[in-house]
Amino acid sequence: MTLYSEISEQPERIKSLLSSQKKTVEKIAAEIQKRDIQYVFLAARGTSDNAGRYANYLLGALNGLPLALATPSLFTYYKQPPKLKNALVVGISQSGKSPDIVSVLEEGKRQGCATLAITNEPNSDLANISDFVLDIQAGAEKAVAATKTYTTELMSVAMLSAAMTGNKKYWNELHKLPGWMKQTLKQDAFISQVAQRYRYMKQTIVLGRGFNYATAFEWALKLKELTYIIAEPYSSADFAHGPIAMVESGYPVFAVAPKGKVFDSMLQMLKRLKDDISAELVVISNDKRALSLAQVPLTIPVDVPEWLSPLVSILPAQLFAYHLTLAKGYDTEHPRSIRKVTETR
Amino acid sequence: MTLYSEISEQPERIKSLLSSQKKTVEKIAAEIQKRDIQYVFLAARGTSDNAGRYANYLLGALNGLPLALATPSLFTYYKQPPKLKNALVVGISQSGKSPDIVSVLEEGKRQGCATLAITNEPNSDLANISDFVLDIQAGAEKAVAATKTYTTELMSVAMLSAAMTGNKKYWNELHKLPGWMKQTLKQDAFISQVAQRYRYMKQTIVLGRGFNYATAFEWALKLKELTYIIAEPYSSADFAHGPIAMVESGYPVFAVAPKGKVFDSMLQMLKRLKDDISAELVVISNDKRALSLAQVPLTIPVDVPEWLSPLVSILPAQLFAYHLTLAKGYDTEHPRSIRKVTETR
Repeated sequence: MTLYSEISEQPERIKSLLSSQKKTVEKIAAEIQKRDIQYVFLAARGTSDNAGRYANYLLGALNGLPLALATPSLFTYYKQPPKLKNALVVGISQSGKSPDIVSVLEEGKRQGCATLAITNEPNSDLANISDFVLDIQAGAEKAVAATKTYTTELMSVAMLSAAMTGNKKYWNELHKLPGWMKQTLKQDAFISQVAQRYRYMKQTIVLGRGFNYATAFEWALKLKELTYIIAEPYSSADFAHGPIAMVESGYPVFAVAPKGKVFDSMLQMLKRLKDDISAELVVISNDKRALSLAQVPLTIPVDVPEWLSPLVSILPAQLFAYHLTLAKGYDTEHPRSIRKVTETR
Repeated sequence: MTLYSEISEQPERIKSLLSSQKKTVEKIAAEIQKRDIQYVFLAARGTSDNAGRYANYLLGALNGLPLALATPSLFTYYKQPPKLKNALVVGISQSGKSPDIVSVLEEGKRQGCATLAITNEPNSDLANISDFVLDIQAGAEKAVAATKTYTTELMSVAMLSAAMTGNKKYWNELHKLPGWMKQTLKQDAFISQVAQRYRYMKQTIVLGRGFNYATAFEWALKLKELTYIIAEPYSSADFAHGPIAMVESGYPVFAVAPKGKVFDSMLQMLKRLKDDISAELVVISNDKRALSLAQVPLTIPVDVPEWLSPLVSILPAQLFAYHLTLAKGYDTEHPRSIRKVTETR
């Protein structure tokens, strides 16, 4: 299966990206830092938009950069783009083809902003109009559901962020990623087994917060694309503001809750769901307090730092979506109604 | 029923807000424009976050202001807030109490930014630490599900945006809102009837785009809070990038598609859902081409301009959620598991 092999090759892709692109990333970081950048304006769709959600937290936390997610229709249908003074305009797109994302970068360039493309196609329209290009070097992705382009997009953002800090500690941690990822993928047989339990599940909630807000969105997207269940992602804080009303006894809630600064808030929500509502929990974590609450605990290595945890925690989520697709008897390679490249305006 | 009467009083609240707050809004707009504001940094949760989604499009389209939605956990748990140079920092909160929203405004103030609170409680923590306060004057909202505070938050944003353009045309249109809203609420008996059909519906998708991206989110939130169904909101563009795979014949899709610049893109998606997938459509619109595709057409007046359509199009959505709650036999005033004021960090 192409999807399965693309999931499996991620540790290698991340490893080679790190060695081949480090210098390019450092050059781009230096160029960006010469300019008076006050915030990042980022355009993306689908899986790439989830990489944008990671960038939102990471560039904020490590680099002090606020980030605005673009509303592409203001550039395309409304033709009333905002004034992007002192913004770094970033487009993330596997194919580099989506016309709406290209429009945002074009307008950024027209307004004199620095522009950066993060893409798997360094000869695409998106790359061609950008000042800087981060080639995610994922190799051809043939399965319709994106997996390795997601983690290589995250990795590109993480490398750029590390380069802008100039702190070696971050690079040392980046080098440990392929090993953590490999170790995590070893749960494959276990995940294949536990996915059976959800053969007739039709809907779920996916919770994450902080850096792993992105992971919750991406897990939910894989479930929707591949297994056709309704899977709605939330930050645990937004979830408490209303949607928690939906959950009743036995309702499945998936959660991404690795160790880190938001862990306590996630744990509190998981306890509330388990103890007060008797929800059924599937939890990705490296902390026993969260894992012990779960019907299905999915683990990541205990020493993964929070800022890199999204690159590792998405792996059990991808495997879970893959095996549930098989359990439900659906096509893992060609989900209905969607194509690999979606050209929206 | 309190919820019903709060839905019904919206035209009057909007009318009195317009007359009593116009001068305050114009003063705030003038003060803001004296400063070198390059973008808006906005913090909100739940219903108020949906008002923020409206601000994202409106301030971009009418005022050229990019908008970043804050990630409050960077301010609270991570204690690594981004550098907010030249930002107008805005907090929207009915109660003015949520500690995470207050934290964002405090940090904005500490960094020397202009700060604006949009709230129903002009003596709240949020209001007290802000340079400018827009009092939405909704009166006490007693139902747990927010309705009149949503439309008065939208109205406050719309008035501020109109004031910053200095264009009288926008004020003239604002004055027509109460009439359009009253006319739209007349569908109450019809909506009460058609809601019966969805007595056993467990999940739905809610689509909107551009200005009405916010309406899709708010309609979905009301459905989740009150009827406990899974209702996931999407822009039609994001929906095409994967989640459309979930939809099969007979699947209910709700859509907000009034006349305007994104109408054609919404109509194209509705046709695809109807003709290719045989989805069941509930559509809020003032264009016959969209309404004629719907099993349940919900209309708004034909002359509502797109920028103000979210204040009108949310009304049939609120009524629909209210009547569906009754049809399902649930409590319209006190949904399970949630409280009126949710204090997240």
